[in-house]
Amino acid sequence: MKKDFLYNEIAGNIADKIKTGVLRAGERLSSVRTLSREHGISINTAKRIFLELEAQSLVQSKPQSGYFVSPLNYLKLPLPETSQPLPVVKNMEPNDLIDSVYSNMARNDLTLLSIGVPSGNLLPLAKLKKEIVLATRALQEGGTAYEPLQGNLKLRRMIAVRSLAWEGHLKESDVVTTNGCMNALALCLMALTEPGDTLALESPCYPGILQLAVSMGLKVLEIATHPVTGIAIDALEKLLPEINVCLLVPNFNTPYGYCMPDAHKKEIVKLLAKHNIPLIEDDTYGDLHFGPERPKCCKSFDTEGNVLWCSSVSKTLAPGYRVGWVAPGKYKDRLLRLKLVHALSSTAVIHEATGNFLMTGRYDHHLRQLRKTLQENYQRYALAIALHFPPGTKISRPQGGLTLWVEFPKEINTAKLYNYALKKQISIAPGRMFTLQDQFQNCMRLCIGLPWTDELSFTLKQLGSLAKAFITSTP
Amino acid sequence: MKKDFLYNEIAGNIADKIKTGVLRAGERLSSVRTLSREHGISINTAKRIFLELEAQSLVQSKPQSGYFVSPLNYLKLPLPETSQPLPVVKNMEPNDLIDSVYSNMARNDLTLLSIGVPSGNLLPLAKLKKEIVLATRALQEGGTAYEPLQGNLKLRRMIAVRSLAWEGHLKESDVVTTNGCMNALALCLMALTEPGDTLALESPCYPGILQLAVSMGLKVLEIATHPVTGIAIDALEKLLPEINVCLLVPNFNTPYGYCMPDAHKKEIVKLLAKHNIPLIEDDTYGDLHFGPERPKCCKSFDTEGNVLWCSSVSKTLAPGYRVGWVAPGKYKDRLLRLKLVHALSSTAVIHEATGNFLMTGRYDHHLRQLRKTLQENYQRYALAIALHFPPGTKISRPQGGLTLWVEFPKEINTAKLYNYALKKQISIAPGRMFTLQDQFQNCMRLCIGLPWTDELSFTLKQLGSLAKAFITSTP
Repeated sequence: MKKDFLYNEIAGNIADKIKTGVLRAGERLSSVRTLSREHGISINTAKRIFLELEAQSLVQSKPQSGYFVSPLNYLKLPLPETSQPLPVVKNMEPNDLIDSVYSNMARNDLTLLSIGVPSGNLLPLAKLKKEIVLATRALQEGGTAYEPLQGNLKLRRMIAVRSLAWEGHLKESDVVTTNGCMNALALCLMALTEPGDTLALESPCYPGILQLAVSMGLKVLEIATHPVTGIAIDALEKLLPEINVCLLVPNFNTPYGYCMPDAHKKEIVKLLAKHNIPLIEDDTYGDLHFGPERPKCCKSFDTEGNVLWCSSVSKTLAPGYRVGWVAPGKYKDRLLRLKLVHALSSTAVIHEATGNFLMTGRYDHHLRQLRKTLQENYQRYALAIALHFPPGTKISRPQGGLTLWVEFPKEINTAKLYNYALKKQISIAPGRMFTLQDQFQNCMRLCIGLPWTDELSFTLKQLGSLAKAFITSTP
Repeated sequence: MKKDFLYNEIAGNIADKIKTGVLRAGERLSSVRTLSREHGISINTAKRIFLELEAQSLVQSKPQSGYFVSPLNYLKLPLPETSQPLPVVKNMEPNDLIDSVYSNMARNDLTLLSIGVPSGNLLPLAKLKKEIVLATRALQEGGTAYEPLQGNLKLRRMIAVRSLAWEGHLKESDVVTTNGCMNALALCLMALTEPGDTLALESPCYPGILQLAVSMGLKVLEIATHPVTGIAIDALEKLLPEINVCLLVPNFNTPYGYCMPDAHKKEIVKLLAKHNIPLIEDDTYGDLHFGPERPKCCKSFDTEGNVLWCSSVSKTLAPGYRVGWVAPGKYKDRLLRLKLVHALSSTAVIHEATGNFLMTGRYDHHLRQLRKTLQENYQRYALAIALHFPPGTKISRPQGGLTLWVEFPKEINTAKLYNYALKKQISIAPGRMFTLQDQFQNCMRLCIGLPWTDELSFTLKQLGSLAKAFITSTP
C-alpha cells in the first residue's frame, strides 16, 4: 500500500509540474536511475512512473536519450475570440440540425462526440443498481406511492450538506427536487416569465435551453461571452433595461467549459438584484472541476434569495435517472405550486436510491475518478487536435465539465462536416446548434466524456482529415 | 379446486342477481339446506356462501328466519343534479384549500379519503420490485443513459397492444411516453395553447387539471356535466365558438366516476373535429371498469388525429413511478419537441420495469383484483353513507375508477367539514376544490381505493356524524 501511495505521489507531482508549466514543453526529465535514487524506489517503479506519464501523453521517450516533456502542442492552439452575438433578439431556431443530431442519441453504431454526458463506462453502474434494489426494499410501499411535494428528504439533505463545499449554506427546506435539471430550469422559467418576456443567456449556449426558451414564447437575448471568463459583464449591463430574467451556467458551461471567476459571479449577482432581475443558475457541471477545488456558485453570493440554483446528477452519475433539483430562493412557493401541477411527484425509487448513494461517500470517490478521466481526456483531445486538425483551429480551455469547443477557420462549415462525419459513423455537435443567430458556423462541440481508446484517437484523426478536406478543396 | 370453483360460481351468481335487482331488497333467500341440495354442495359450503355474501353487505341474516337480501339503502340515495357552472370564464382558484388538502398527502396519521389513488395494500408490490431489479440488469448501462426521445419501446408496444381492447388500434410509433399523466396533459396543453386561450373542461373537474390550466394562463370554461353520462353535449355545443381546446376525462372521471356513453364520445369527437378544436382525452382511469368490458375512448372514434389520448399507470399500478404516455395524433411532432426541451427523457429503469410488467400478463391479473376491490368498496361506502350520513345526501354512481362524489344538503359546508374531520384524523376532498367557481360547497369526493376494514367503516360513520351536526346545530 505504502509503495503504491509513493508511486502515485511521485507520478502526480511530475504531472502537476508539467500541467502548470513548471516543467516546460520539450524539457528533459531526470533519468530512471536518478528518479529511483532520489525517491528511494526501485528501478522498475521508476520506469512504471514514466510509462504512466507517457500513457497520459505528458511525456515522450526518445530512444537513447530518455524522457522529455511532451511538446504539448495544444497549449499553442489559439483561444476562440469573445463571441459577438447581435445585441438584439433574433430567434432563428436551428431545428433541422437539432432534430438530426438528437436522433443520433440512441444509435449504437456511432461515436457520439455530439453528446454532453459521460459514457456509461465511466459510471458506477454496479453500485447504483444495488442502491435501486435497496430503495425498493426500504421505501414504504416499495416506492409506488407519491413522494412528498418538495421531494425525497435524504436527497434534499445531501444536497444541503454538499452545498457547504461551495458556501451555499442551503438547508434541506431550501431545496425542491425535480425530474432532472431541464425540468428544474423549465419550472423556474414558468415561475418567472410570461410569453414575450426577454431572457438573457450566454452565447454559445446549450441548445436545450435555447429551445426551451423559444418553446415558452420568450425572446432570447444572447450576450457576448468570453471563452475563459464567461459572460461579458459590460455587455450584460448595457442590455439590462431590456432583460426580464437571466439564465447562466457559470461553472464549466457547455460548450466552452470555462469557470466564471468568483469576482464576476459576485458582481453579476449584485447587479441583477439591484435591477430586480431574477437569476436562474444552472450548476449541473459544478462538481466536474479539473482543479482541486469545487468552485463557488452565483448562489454563494446571493443574500436576497434572487438566485434560483439548479443542478442534477445527470452529468455526473446517471443521465437516465432524471434526478435534479432547484433551490429557488424567494420564489420557492411559486416553484412548489408549479411542480404540483406539472409533475406532482418525482420517481420515488430512483430519487431515494440517489439520496442514499450520495450519503455513502461513494459519490465523492466516483467524482474523483471521473474528473481525472475528463481532465486527461481534455489533454488527449487537445493533443490530437493539435496534431490532426487544420492549421488555424482554435480550442477553448475547459477547467471542468464534459465538453470542448473547437473553432475552425472560417471556410469550414460544421453543418456540412456533420454530414460527412456521420457517414464515417461519427456524430458531432455543429456550432450553429448553440445559438439562434447567424454564428458559430465554423465551430463544433466535442464530448470528452468517452473512455479514451485507440479507436477514439483514430476517430479524432479522421475528423481532422474530413475538416482539412474543406480547405484543400471544398467537398 | 373444483369445489372452490363451484363455491365462487354460486356466490357470484347470487351476488349478481342482487346487484342487478333480480333479487330485490328485503327478499328472502333459499335456506342453507335448499342451497346445499340444489347445488350438491355440503351444508358447510352453503353456509360459507352466505357468510361471504354477508361480508359483502349483500345479504343479512335474521335469527330464526334465515338470510334476506340487504335493504341496499344506497340504491335509494338520490343522484346529484347535472352541474350548472356559469357559461362564462370565472377563474377563482381555491388555493388555500388545495394547499391544505395536498399537504396531508404525506401524513401517516390520517385516513386519506381525500386522495384519488389506490392504497399500496392493493398493489402488486413484490412483483414490481422484482421487475425493477431485472430492469437494472437488462438495460444497457443499467438504465443510467437517456432513453430514446419517444420513450421505452417495450412500454410503447404494450400500450399499443392494449389499445386493441378499446379499439384504439394504436401502433408503438403513435405513442410518446411521459413522466406520468399530468406531464402528458401539460405537454399537450403547451403544444396546443397560448396564454389567454380558452380551455373547456367537465365540471366538477380534477383539481390538478384546473390548477395546470390556470398556471398556464388559460381561461377555464367549465361545462355542465351529468353525474352518469358526463359532459352535457348541448351545453358544450353552445359554447364552441369561445373554445380553443377541450380536455375531457370520459372514462370513470374523478370525482363522479361516470362512463360517458359511446354515442356521446362519437358525437363529441365529430363535433370538435368539425370545429377544428383539439380534444385532449385523459383516460387514466379507463382500465378500472367495474363492468365486464373495458370501455372505448374518444380516441376510438378519432379518424383525423384530432384526439390526444393520455394515460398512465399512476391510478392502477404505481403513482410514484411517474409512468405516463400520450398518443398525440397529428400533433406528435409538436409533442416530441416539447418533451425534448422540458424533460429530455423519462426515468429509464422504471419505464423498462413497467413495460416488462405489462408484458407478463400480471397487469391484467392485478387489474381484475383491483377492480373487484374497488367495486365492492363502492357498495360498502354507499351502504355506510345510506346508514350514517344526513338525510338528503346524494351520491354519484361510479361505474369504475377510484372515487365517489357525495352531495350533502345545502346547509353542510364541506370546507368547514374538512376542518372538523381533520381533527378526527380524517382527510376529505371538499367540493370547492373541483371548480374555479362558486359551486359544490356542499359536496365532497371520497376515495374508494383504500382496503376495507372495520376502522374504515367506523371512519365513514364518524364522518356522517360530523356532517349531521351541521344540521342539528351549525357547529
